[in-house]
Amino acid sequence: VNPDIASERQTASFCVETLTAVLDGGTERTRRRRAVVEAIECDPVFSRENQYFQSQNERYEAAVRKAVHLQKKMREMGWTEDGPEYKYIYRALAGDVAFLLHHIFVRSISMLGSDKQIAKWIPLATQYQLIGSYAQTELGHGTYLQGLETTAVFDITTQEFILNTPKISAMKWWPGDMGRSATHTVAFAQLYIHGQCYGVHPFIVQIRSLRDHSVCPGVTAGDIGPKMSFEHADNGYLLLQNVRVPRENMLSKFCEVQPDGTYVRRGSQQINYFTMTAVRISLISDEVIIPLMKACTIAIRYSVVRRQSKLKPGEEEAKILDYQTQQEKLLPQLAAAYAFHFISDYLQELFDKGYREIQRKNFDTLPELHAFSSGFKAMVTQYCTSAVEICLRACGGHGYSLLSGLPSLYTKILASCIYEGENTILLLQTARFLTKCFTAARAGQPVPPSVTYLAAVKPGTCPAQNKLDFLNPDVYTEAYQHMAVRLISSTAAKLQDLIQSGVQKHNAWNQCTVQLAQAAKAHCHYITVKNFAETVEKLETKAGIQKIMKHLCDLFALHGIFSNAGVFLHDGYISGAQMDMVTASYLDLLAIIRKDAVPLVDAFDLTDKSLNSALGSYDGQVYQRLYEWAQKSPTNTQMSPAYEMYLKPLLHNSLSKL
Amino acid sequence: VNPDIASERQTASFCVETLTAVLDGGTERTRRRRAVVEAIECDPVFSRENQYFQSQNERYEAAVRKAVHLQKKMREMGWTEDGPEYKYIYRALAGDVAFLLHHIFVRSISMLGSDKQIAKWIPLATQYQLIGSYAQTELGHGTYLQGLETTAVFDITTQEFILNTPKISAMKWWPGDMGRSATHTVAFAQLYIHGQCYGVHPFIVQIRSLRDHSVCPGVTAGDIGPKMSFEHADNGYLLLQNVRVPRENMLSKFCEVQPDGTYVRRGSQQINYFTMTAVRISLISDEVIIPLMKACTIAIRYSVVRRQSKLKPGEEEAKILDYQTQQEKLLPQLAAAYAFHFISDYLQELFDKGYREIQRKNFDTLPELHAFSSGFKAMVTQYCTSAVEICLRACGGHGYSLLSGLPSLYTKILASCIYEGENTILLLQTARFLTKCFTAARAGQPVPPSVTYLAAVKPGTCPAQNKLDFLNPDVYTEAYQHMAVRLISSTAAKLQDLIQSGVQKHNAWNQCTVQLAQAAKAHCHYITVKNFAETVEKLETKAGIQKIMKHLCDLFALHGIFSNAGVFLHDGYISGAQMDMVTASYLDLLAIIRKDAVPLVDAFDLTDKSLNSALGSYDGQVYQRLYEWAQKSPTNTQMSPAYEMYLKPLLHNSLSKL
Repeated sequence: VNPDIASERQTASFCVETLTAVLDGGTERTRRRRAVVEAIECDPVFSRENQYFQSQNERYEAAVRKAVHLQKKMREMGWTEDGPEYKYIYRALAGDVAFLLHHIFVRSISMLGSDKQIAKWIPLATQYQLIGSYAQTELGHGTYLQGLETTAVFDITTQEFILNTPKISAMKWWPGDMGRSATHTVAFAQLYIHGQCYGVHPFIVQIRSLRDHSVCPGVTAGDIGPKMSFEHADNGYLLLQNVRVPRENMLSKFCEVQPDGTYVRRGSQQINYFTMTAVRISLISDEVIIPLMKACTIAIRYSVVRRQSKLKPGEEEAKILDYQTQQEKLLPQLAAAYAFHFISDYLQELFDKGYREIQRKNFDTLPELHAFSSGFKAMVTQYCTSAVEICLRACGGHGYSLLSGLPSLYTKILASCIYEGENTILLLQTARFLTKCFTAARAGQPVPPSVTYLAAVKPGTCPAQNKLDFLNPDVYTEAYQHMAVRLISSTAAKLQDLIQSGVQKHNAWNQCTVQLAQAAKAHCHYITVKNFAETVEKLETKAGIQKIMKHLCDLFALHGIFSNAGVFLHDGYISGAQMDMVTASYLDLLAIIRKDAVPLVDAFDLTDKSLNSALGSYDGQVYQRLYEWAQKSPTNTQMSPAYEMYLKPLLHNSLSKL
Repeated sequence: VNPDIASERQTASFCVETLTAVLDGGTERTRRRRAVVEAIECDPVFSRENQYFQSQNERYEAAVRKAVHLQKKMREMGWTEDGPEYKYIYRALAGDVAFLLHHIFVRSISMLGSDKQIAKWIPLATQYQLIGSYAQTELGHGTYLQGLETTAVFDITTQEFILNTPKISAMKWWPGDMGRSATHTVAFAQLYIHGQCYGVHPFIVQIRSLRDHSVCPGVTAGDIGPKMSFEHADNGYLLLQNVRVPRENMLSKFCEVQPDGTYVRRGSQQINYFTMTAVRISLISDEVIIPLMKACTIAIRYSVVRRQSKLKPGEEEAKILDYQTQQEKLLPQLAAAYAFHFISDYLQELFDKGYREIQRKNFDTLPELHAFSSGFKAMVTQYCTSAVEICLRACGGHGYSLLSGLPSLYTKILASCIYEGENTILLLQTARFLTKCFTAARAGQPVPPSVTYLAAVKPGTCPAQNKLDFLNPDVYTEAYQHMAVRLISSTAAKLQDLIQSGVQKHNAWNQCTVQLAQAAKAHCHYITVKNFAETVEKLETKAGIQKIMKHLCDLFALHGIFSNAGVFLHDGYISGAQMDMVTASYLDLLAIIRKDAVPLVDAFDLTDKSLNSALGSYDGQVYQRLYEWAQKSPTNTQMSPAYEMYLKPLLHNSLSKL
């Protein structure tokens, strides 16, 4: 172990193992997680060792191999898809496995299919006797589902639906597992019966032969080509020309077409969006927070090994983490990783509670769940994407090498801002919910518990009198609340004013959207700070942990005020002098948390294999590993014809001259 | 041409061709640029058509092929490296060509070598009879040059320098063209004579045989492996063990070791850094502003072709550029592209003037030039990197496809934040210059003209009384100036206070660095706004152009105030009510500039081939091109063994069941 990193661990102010257990939700879960990680990592089929050197085709093949092997492994180990192990497996594989959309295929049949459909399709799918995909997005249509152009016309004579891609923009585009693997897909299409359109519905469509994998008649399918990441995934395109599927293939738990063409709806239409709500919440932890934890681990460990310039003349070069500017880059991201870990737990609980209600056919919580999942998906993905980028850039040149692991974390997390709903559109959905609740709350009508704060009118100013007052969670939580209410109420007022001045409602809405999106983010930021502060309070039995978590909570909150000073200063709630206090406390916290930075990332308990980083390993042997890994690159192991073809003739000219 | 994009061009408020000439610096230059671009683009050797599908090895080979072919082409066309064509060539190739570091090798010999050295090496180098590199950065040492560990010990008996890599962190790491191509390099090493260290000096070292390209005795060299971009470049590593070079190989324009071991210095040592100053200024336009212009062109053209959701119920889906949120993402980036184009011209002039002085052995402007090149390199690269990322994300899923061209623009521009000096360190160098000038200015001493504004004490408040007042350049330029002065003076005061309270000077400096970096950025932001406003004023002979440029200047300035509201509100210079006026004017401008958005990117005059984007072509045929290009991907043209090996056995199980 590099002595520079070893010394960081000797002075930890808390027990790393205890904090790991807090993050896992108990020591038993830590034990089970570690058992899974070990089983996966010691299996060579799952190795990610040469990943940075592989082409898209090689990555795809490896992903399929892993997916098929995983199924066997799960049987052997007694792991189930419903069990807690599943989450750990996915994390241990870092998502580099095929058939993720196949699982969404299964999930959508389970949620939207009739009992009969479930009985027919699910057993085949779970044994990979067919490979499914989920074909929603089209070349010309993403988040706005009502705009989908694929059609499914009911043919009463044959009792079939006829699916068509009427024009190029209607081609399905992006679905994972569809480019090369899938034999079936759940395709979303506009349902037509007797010439009347009933809106978008899901249909099971076979696209490739089970015998020889050739595409079915009427089907054109392929891979959409290289992307910024997800090289292993065969995101695909699909063009349908008069493809017929039997009436039974429309997923019909909530709506059905009867043999005579009668359309029957059961339950709420909103339930169709429920899969997305579930996916949005689960992606926050797996696709966003874990990558941020990895990025923090890599960047912080590297920053105590890397030395540059001198802090004090005459001394040796300083660890870069001892520079205030480096602390200011990395430590707020570390605090954010903890903040979002705790908010993710909170969202999962909220979702589980809501889901239980839905199973009892009570759909009351759907709007709140939808608003929460949308807003937090947008806010957390955006925040964490920036955070990972900051970690990458904070590692200088070596961070830019793929071998650091940071570029692939960044290019992958970036996608989370786009998939499962474009962030701006999601924020505006949350904003719509908030303005509605705001109006209701101000009129004294009941609103969901999470937004009752909108009813409270608290003008006043921040009571802090010195920098230490800003380490009081009541003080900063109150400031965030004030700011969120102000942004929501002032935007609601602007909207009202525009409408009253004669601007058409939809134009008025459009003219407020920049501010509405800002208000929705402010709401999510407030809830995150509040939840972090409450979580810290509950840690009273673990004094050492509580103390350091309190520091991180303070840092997260004050960083947010420091970086968004304008919205706090705007109405004078926080004065310029108070902002100087915020800044002073904020900078003080950096120096305090600096001391525990390495133990704080060690507590994430990420193995070297899962980090897959030459910069971030536990032992801090950065330079040795970079050198060792570089030598395995195809640029060193494969000869290039460039020398013989282009260079040799030129260089030989100078043989006599040098 | 797609009718949605065609209609955008019919309503332009200005003449696109005239604006292009303004950007080029005259119609004659436009003509010459177009001639070069056409000559390059019609030559199939320079094609970038399949670039998104190529491996690192394929990209390297193509880059070498292009470099060698270019030499021939230049001879044929009569283009010279000193002529204006050279810049156009580089742009037309989008930098995808080998031997860029070879040119730095040539440049450093020209600037730092004696006449004799120049006479010996330059002719061979310019004919590619040797391939050079520039080996400065080490595995453990980047921006802090004094920390380099490679040694060059003078051996008086043989009249040679003995070069060594004393430990792994001293290995040269990152130099371009060194991994696979270079036969020679300029290596920077600590010079030792008779046991005494004289600091870092440049030495010409042969590293590979001119006969068979094998590495020379004592040399270990190779490629550092995959990076986030620059797949075509063979960034390399170099380990030296007792490698001897003759005394004549130390570049000796400014310092020399005489045969008896006497060390002689001529001129300022700072001149060694002058190459970096030149490189920093030239990279701003080529590596940063052009990529941003490309990203804006792609994103804005796509945003008038892409339709999503309905602005007004009952209407067809709206062009996404008609949404305020989309305008707010893209139009400020467009304004920034113009703002930075003009500041780049300003910096180039400043540099040319300074260079003329240096050639007359007057080194007085060096500190200002160094501070300017450092600060602007940092500020502009950071701003433009964020801007390109915003453009990418604003294109949703299709922006994430490599075929959009945006990911490669992003991953490449990101590197500009790191190479040629890490941005934070550069900002702090500028801050050091500014605090010095501030102290001098306040003491009534003379300071360089660019910072005389620091002497002016203007407390007061912003005089704007309504939103239209914020469209007055004097009003916002004054606000930026006030803000820059406040940040510099308050940080200087904090630094002074800390030192007076007994904190050691270097610790006090470290405790102020977050704020110092912010102050340096504020200074550059102010100068950029001021320069943009002055440029607009000078466009009086071109009324249509002046009007639209005025809008863009206003937008750039107000966007900066809106996005950094805190620093303007902090001392009450701008009040909350005035900030609402800023916001209102800012949002109004979006709607105005929206109308000219497509003509404004058309004026950049970037060809479809140079954009290399399925989303950004002039004709707006987005979906057709995505589909066509995807089909050429190796994921569609090469069979994967995954089906036969893993899928077939599983799928055949269900043959009887479905």
